[in-house]
Amino acid sequence: MTLGRLNHVGVATPSIAVSIAMYRDLLGAEAIGEPFDLPAQGVKVCFIDAPNMQIELIEPYDDASPIAGFLAKNPAGGQHHLCFEVADIDAAVAELTAKGARVLGKPRIGAHGTPIVFVHPRDMGGVLIELMETHKH
Amino acid sequence: MTLGRLNHVGVATPSIAVSIAMYRDLLGAEAIGEPFDLPAQGVKVCFIDAPNMQIELIEPYDDASPIAGFLAKNPAGGQHHLCFEVADIDAAVAELTAKGARVLGKPRIGAHGTPIVFVHPRDMGGVLIELMETHKH
Repeated sequence: MTLGRLNHVGVATPSIAVSIAMYRDLLGAEAIGEPFDLPAQGVKVCFIDAPNMQIELIEPYDDASPIAGFLAKNPAGGQHHLCFEVADIDAAVAELTAKGARVLGKPRIGAHGTPIVFVHPRDMGGVLIELMETHKH
Repeated sequence: MTLGRLNHVGVATPSIAVSIAMYRDLLGAEAIGEPFDLPAQGVKVCFIDAPNMQIELIEPYDDASPIAGFLAKNPAGGQHHLCFEVADIDAAVAELTAKGARVLGKPRIGAHGTPIVFVHPRDMGGVLIELMETHKH
């Protein structure tokens, strides 16, 4: 695989509404999507556009949310993951697995409607890496 | 101010050499800069290019490094800051300060040779934000 473009930075927050206000009123974000629920993944999501990538705000959907633990450790929120695009997610998973990296589960459809998968931060220098198959046009 | 492009994601690491090997051999990074020292800022730095931004690997220069505390809490390394470009750093600092955000110190010349400043994560949803004045051409 080749390192692809950074699609988004995942930022965990206890409140998407509060974070939207911060990015809009303090940092001048102008393109802010409508928040939506991903109950199957246990998160509420909102994308904010920067000129070359997006910020993905993620808020727990309920107490069983996979980001509940992160927010317990970081109550104010914080950087949760980096999502890089790959051309072929199955090939990327096969290559990473063959090289000994721990891929977390099988690819599933992510917030952008293309397959995504996460790689264990222990094998990624402490960074939770999401791989997302690039939209095919 | 308007939210500008994400220039880089700062990733703290106990070893730039180990992180370079990971990004090259596992994630397929192909454009990896030469590491260099910024003793005045207490860090060693290496930029890795993704197609639309850079990863800035930062390793402590010495025990007094400002990232020593981060690595004590995150021994494997991890996401340290997000750097967004702004057109005019003095205007950005004035605006953020007027709006109550805590800007950390005065702008100084950063690793890319243009003025940079950091904003306190407590005012940025738990994320350490670096603002960098865009290169003028």
